[in-house]
Amino acid sequence: MTTVSLDEMTWEEIRDAAGRGTPVVVAVGATEQHGPHLPVCTDWVIPEALERAAAQRIPLVVGPPLRLGAKSRPLSGGGEHFPGTISLRAATLIEVLAQTLGGLVRSGFTRLVVHNWHLENAGHLWEACDLVHERYPEATMLLIEDPFPALTDADLEEIFPNGFPGWRSEHASVVETSLMQVVRPDLVRFDRIIDDHGERAPAWDVIPYPPAFTTSSGVLSRATDANEETGRLLFERAVGHLVDAVTTEFGARAE
Amino acid sequence: MTTVSLDEMTWEEIRDAAGRGTPVVVAVGATEQHGPHLPVCTDWVIPEALERAAAQRIPLVVGPPLRLGAKSRPLSGGGEHFPGTISLRAATLIEVLAQTLGGLVRSGFTRLVVHNWHLENAGHLWEACDLVHERYPEATMLLIEDPFPALTDADLEEIFPNGFPGWRSEHASVVETSLMQVVRPDLVRFDRIIDDHGERAPAWDVIPYPPAFTTSSGVLSRATDANEETGRLLFERAVGHLVDAVTTEFGARAE
Amino acid sequence: MTTVSLDEMTWEEIRDAAGRGTPVVVAVGATEQHGPHLPVCTDWVIPEALERAAAQRIPLVVGPPLRLGAKSRPLSGGGEHFPGTISLRAATLIEVLAQTLGGLVRSGFTRLVVHNWHLENAGHLWEACDLVHERYPEATMLLIEDPFPALTDADLEEIFPNGFPGWRSEHASVVETSLMQVVRPDLVRFDRIIDDHGERAPAWDVIPYPPAFTTSSGVLSRATDANEETGRLLFERAVGHLVDAVTTEFGARAE
Amino acid sequence: MTTVSLDEMTWEEIRDAAGRGTPVVVAVGATEQHGPHLPVCTDWVIPEALERAAAQRIPLVVGPPLRLGAKSRPLSGGGEHFPGTISLRAATLIEVLAQTLGGLVRSGFTRLVVHNWHLENAGHLWEACDLVHERYPEATMLLIEDPFPALTDADLEEIFPNGFPGWRSEHASVVETSLMQVVRPDLVRFDRIIDDHGERAPAWDVIPYPPAFTTSSGVLSRATDANEETGRLLFERAVGHLVDAVTTEFGARAE
Amino acid sequence: MTTVSLDEMTWEEIRDAAGRGTPVVVAVGATEQHGPHLPVCTDWVIPEALERAAAQRIPLVVGPPLRLGAKSRPLSGGGEHFPGTISLRAATLIEVLAQTLGGLVRSGFTRLVVHNWHLENAGHLWEACDLVHERYPEATMLLIEDPFPALTDADLEEIFPNGFPGWRSEHASVVETSLMQVVRPDLVRFDRIIDDHGERAPAWDVIPYPPAFTTSSGVLSRATDANEETGRLLFERAVGHLVDAVTTEFGARAE
Amino acid sequence: MTTVSLDEMTWEEIRDAAGRGTPVVVAVGATEQHGPHLPVCTDWVIPEALERAAAQRIPLVVGPPLRLGAKSRPLSGGGEHFPGTISLRAATLIEVLAQTLGGLVRSGFTRLVVHNWHLENAGHLWEACDLVHERYPEATMLLIEDPFPALTDADLEEIFPNGFPGWRSEHASVVETSLMQVVRPDLVRFDRIIDDHGERAPAWDVIPYPPAFTTSSGVLSRATDANEETGRLLFERAVGHLVDAVTTEFGARAE
Repeated sequence: MTTVSLDEMTWEEIRDAAGRGTPVVVAVGATEQHGPHLPVCTDWVIPEALERAAAQRIPLVVGPPLRLGAKSRPLSGGGEHFPGTISLRAATLIEVLAQTLGGLVRSGFTRLVVHNWHLENAGHLWEACDLVHERYPEATMLLIEDPFPALTDADLEEIFPNGFPGWRSEHASVVETSLMQVVRPDLVRFDRIIDDHGERAPAWDVIPYPPAFTTSSGVLSRATDANEETGRLLFERAVGHLVDAVTTEFGARAE
Repeated sequence: MTTVSLDEMTWEEIRDAAGRGTPVVVAVGATEQHGPHLPVCTDWVIPEALERAAAQRIPLVVGPPLRLGAKSRPLSGGGEHFPGTISLRAATLIEVLAQTLGGLVRSGFTRLVVHNWHLENAGHLWEACDLVHERYPEATMLLIEDPFPALTDADLEEIFPNGFPGWRSEHASVVETSLMQVVRPDLVRFDRIIDDHGERAPAWDVIPYPPAFTTSSGVLSRATDANEETGRLLFERAVGHLVDAVTTEFGARAE
Repeated sequence: MTTVSLDEMTWEEIRDAAGRGTPVVVAVGATEQHGPHLPVCTDWVIPEALERAAAQRIPLVVGPPLRLGAKSRPLSGGGEHFPGTISLRAATLIEVLAQTLGGLVRSGFTRLVVHNWHLENAGHLWEACDLVHERYPEATMLLIEDPFPALTDADLEEIFPNGFPGWRSEHASVVETSLMQVVRPDLVRFDRIIDDHGERAPAWDVIPYPPAFTTSSGVLSRATDANEETGRLLFERAVGHLVDAVTTEFGARAE
Repeated sequence: MTTVSLDEMTWEEIRDAAGRGTPVVVAVGATEQHGPHLPVCTDWVIPEALERAAAQRIPLVVGPPLRLGAKSRPLSGGGEHFPGTISLRAATLIEVLAQTLGGLVRSGFTRLVVHNWHLENAGHLWEACDLVHERYPEATMLLIEDPFPALTDADLEEIFPNGFPGWRSEHASVVETSLMQVVRPDLVRFDRIIDDHGERAPAWDVIPYPPAFTTSSGVLSRATDANEETGRLLFERAVGHLVDAVTTEFGARAE
Repeated sequence: MTTVSLDEMTWEEIRDAAGRGTPVVVAVGATEQHGPHLPVCTDWVIPEALERAAAQRIPLVVGPPLRLGAKSRPLSGGGEHFPGTISLRAATLIEVLAQTLGGLVRSGFTRLVVHNWHLENAGHLWEACDLVHERYPEATMLLIEDPFPALTDADLEEIFPNGFPGWRSEHASVVETSLMQVVRPDLVRFDRIIDDHGERAPAWDVIPYPPAFTTSSGVLSRATDANEETGRLLFERAVGHLVDAVTTEFGARAE
Repeated sequence: MTTVSLDEMTWEEIRDAAGRGTPVVVAVGATEQHGPHLPVCTDWVIPEALERAAAQRIPLVVGPPLRLGAKSRPLSGGGEHFPGTISLRAATLIEVLAQTLGGLVRSGFTRLVVHNWHLENAGHLWEACDLVHERYPEATMLLIEDPFPALTDADLEEIFPNGFPGWRSEHASVVETSLMQVVRPDLVRFDRIIDDHGERAPAWDVIPYPPAFTTSSGVLSRATDANEETGRLLFERAVGHLVDAVTTEFGARAE
């Protein structure tokens, strides 16, 4: 049985993979509303699929993901008031990630990859890695806060034919809808795909959120521009980014 | 689409299910060694399968599970020194469960079920529920620490033809191996199934663990007595127990 | 002066006892309602008396007890709503126990016994011991979560002439009432002893508690079956269990 | 049975006392070395004895004491390096006191007295009371950080015939040795009473402690000046102070 | 006396300003190495100067700043190994900010501005605001994580004549050196200004840091392009941004 | 540039000062009401001025101060209900101080001075130093909880011509008003100086505070006795105390 998922491995297989120096990747996603057409698992289904694809190209164990993330901000995720958005306090998220990574180090892994998909997590992940470094100096952590490489103008034009709204507003919109059409089309409600946008998206934030900062649908930009071809392009870019990061930092043949 | 898994639902579907008064269940498992023949996901794959089966019989949403549990004790889980055993500190586990339940309450659910599979979790779950009660008095929590009903002598004889070793030692042994043959036979390494037992299993515990309290294989009792028929019996008992608890406390037609 | 209580020793006597390798025991009890006839100190008066008796048989220092325990659950302790039930949050209890044990290690003790009487504490004690092991690897902890050995059928028949209701319901009932008649008869209100039982005691729990899960008296089973003779039998069993555990793990002549 | 100790009361007696508006007092002491002649329980045996005496004069319930206090400072308590000194981290101490007081409020008490004996506790007690005030606005707390009233010159001369060394150095010396002769003479090792003093006791502190800041005996001043008569004088002053504080703030007939 | 600094006001003046509805701004900076030519206070001297300038244009109280920030990352701040970089753990930073804002709310302010200068703080500030919202629902918080508005191409060309290296590498370089020439020229070591750059600055991060991710000087880009004129331009842009945000969210005449 | 303030130094200057063995001092003050005539920064402006003066006499780096302190008690600071009083929870204060000192140790300093001005901080500072000692055994901390030496009778008579009210009530009164006339006369509202006193100031405390324990002005004693000459005397005494402590513990020529 050749599995890449730590969850599906026995302890002996894990021991052996760690002993070979294989890197292990931990997705950090969220359980968060993604409009009327995408499931709340979108933010962890996607990175886990990317990791499994990367593990076909390079030695990589897909480790235990964090499926609850930092609290959803209205300007980038719709907000905590949406049913189905279930998040952790930052201090808890930091400890869960640090203890997950710590458990992997105690399992023998010394090359750890933290693979983020949820924008709101970004600030907290380095803190967790720094705690792990204090507790387990033998480990090296590769932290990928941004799952995409810099996209070329050609890429941007193809992905966003109606213009790039910025990553912050790209929630439940072109990128995630396209990727879900590739990764889990069975979970996409194609008949419910709509476009929406908040009335205001200033360069700052306000708490509690002004209703104009979010939408009633949970879509923050154009979801109708999504399609499977764009999904495949984005999937390839994101897998390439992950492979590139791992091989650059841990060697082309990490094992 | 009629899904029972919160993860696969959209926020509107979640809102509607919560609005109908549907109970939501949260599995609390572990990522823990289960011998040479079972994967480390055994402790959460099983309860999630039970919950999905229960959701075919009664209105029930299968909520976001906790796949990391309390630290593994050698006498009941083999111990933290096994690769692949990845656990949380109790204070963190309590907060993760409390915040998960809290997020469900804020999503509109008021009938919450906590469904435990990992023995070491038991002491901490009530504390989390009590915190949720303080924070969200509108919620009612059903806490199932023991996933099986009291088994009859006939059941015990059928399940444990060579004698019941006690639940504590029943780790990676007859019960879990049989259930995995029903739930995820593709993850069972049938050729690696063995029997094992620690040299000592006294009525107390010692920290740090004496090697005699655990085994080198991670199996703590007889795994070779496992079979699919036993698995189906256990599956039925455990699903029945969950359905019984939910209907008793929340009504036969909870919705 | 030959004292066995750390509290009554001078620092030099403590230094000397620790230097001889004497084990030290820490009771973990509760301050909790025990019906109309027993004082709220029942859960720590009993284990401290057991420890003093054990210390007459083997070298043992009776260390500083924890007299506040984990929150009282209605099905096993009546519940937090009773006046006089004063408990700690689990995270606090864990730290208090870990710091108490840590102070004993810094005092020179390396053989520590944690002796539990309050059912609700059970889940949290191993966690505290595990923390102490991280902080003070030189210490060995013997954790006795269950203060009784397995009782024989003859014992059970003698103790519970009207049938054994299970340990969970045995709160402020035969066992504790009988033991208090031996340990502190001056604190037993003999004229107030009654029998009582909750209307329901299912195999699961519900939070907040349904009134049917507890009683208005705080007695959860038959207290009128209690008597001094039963108390002496139970006392002997529990002291024997403690002595047995200590001598098994730390040697017959621990010093 | 007319008991003043909450520990020895039943839940109904506690309910009734609280219902009458009786104040409840919580001693905050320490488990700390007190020289070669006094037991490590000195810091909580004394305040509990004072409280029981006060409860003979005014309605007062003697509540559950805190027998572990803040860490011992060399200049005022000898230091944490002495065997038998077992202390709590400040953050833990604050929570234990706050939860103890909280449990008393939930038991029905609204007049709470915090009665300190250990100098190092002083800074942390108000913080705990402030937390309780946030959590239970219905409670009023009387905080007695200094257990003695201002002593007259005549008192000082009688108590300290060789001069008053200041409260900080009065550890295990005249005051505590005299009081223990009144309160628990059976625990005083009369043949081991000595005088001692650190080489330096500046107006500031240094961490880690310079050996010159403490003594090898644990006595910080003159213990040989202690006698039972002085003990009775001090006992009377301290009981008077407690009674005075309670009646001033809660009324002469608090009930 | 017309002061804008809360620190320099009396409590009555603060009460009156709060009573008029004046917004109050809290700078969140850092104490962090800024190369051989800038002091470690750079990250809080600048935002406080911007706030004082804004307070000349609109009603605004300059509140108590946070001068310790989140830990310095090598790719954006040089790293924690530099002497003079003194930071807080994220969980502590979040609480300090939440309690500072809470104190301002209890002082009567309901319009709070959080004004960030240190890139590493960004992820943690929203969490603190969200906690304040839970504790004090009456407050509205304006969170400015990015102190500059989107700069025009003309601006960028003028500021970075040799090309814009990205905000992350702009540490101790053109922007901060130019601004310090305007704000506190007495603290600029003009003779020590140099250019430097790390050998690598990938789109991800690694912990512990590879030496190639930072520099030995602490300058991460071109500091020699700095000049006072650029400083004045940047100062004007940043003050304008702050004024714009406050007036947009709290009204042109907030009082 | 010869600066004594760490904030104004570059990282290289800090590295060099630490390398020479120079002590570094951290003021712990408060942001707290000081009557109608003094600003809320009084409690940190004064100690920072004292430290700068001391640094003219002995090698000393003035490190990053803590400008938020422990919560203000009505009997010694007026109370938390005054606008402009902004404080930290004790557990947070302890961590902020410990992390600040820790950052200084990692910067190379091994001689750390904690210099307190706010009475309410006193209990918490030793705890922070003890934590730092655990984390960084190479550091020595000098803790000055009381910023004045014992004053002679002559001094007391000169400073308090109308009698010494005790340090606790000396809030916003003679001492602080006089010192501010020396340190920052521009911040003293001379026309608003008044005398005031609480109706009661017993030897104990009550929470929540009885109004009689504080004043409506925030002045707790005689402020009109303040004058610049007294300020200079107090300034000299306090600087002398700081210099005396540092040279006694760290050597006359610490560098």
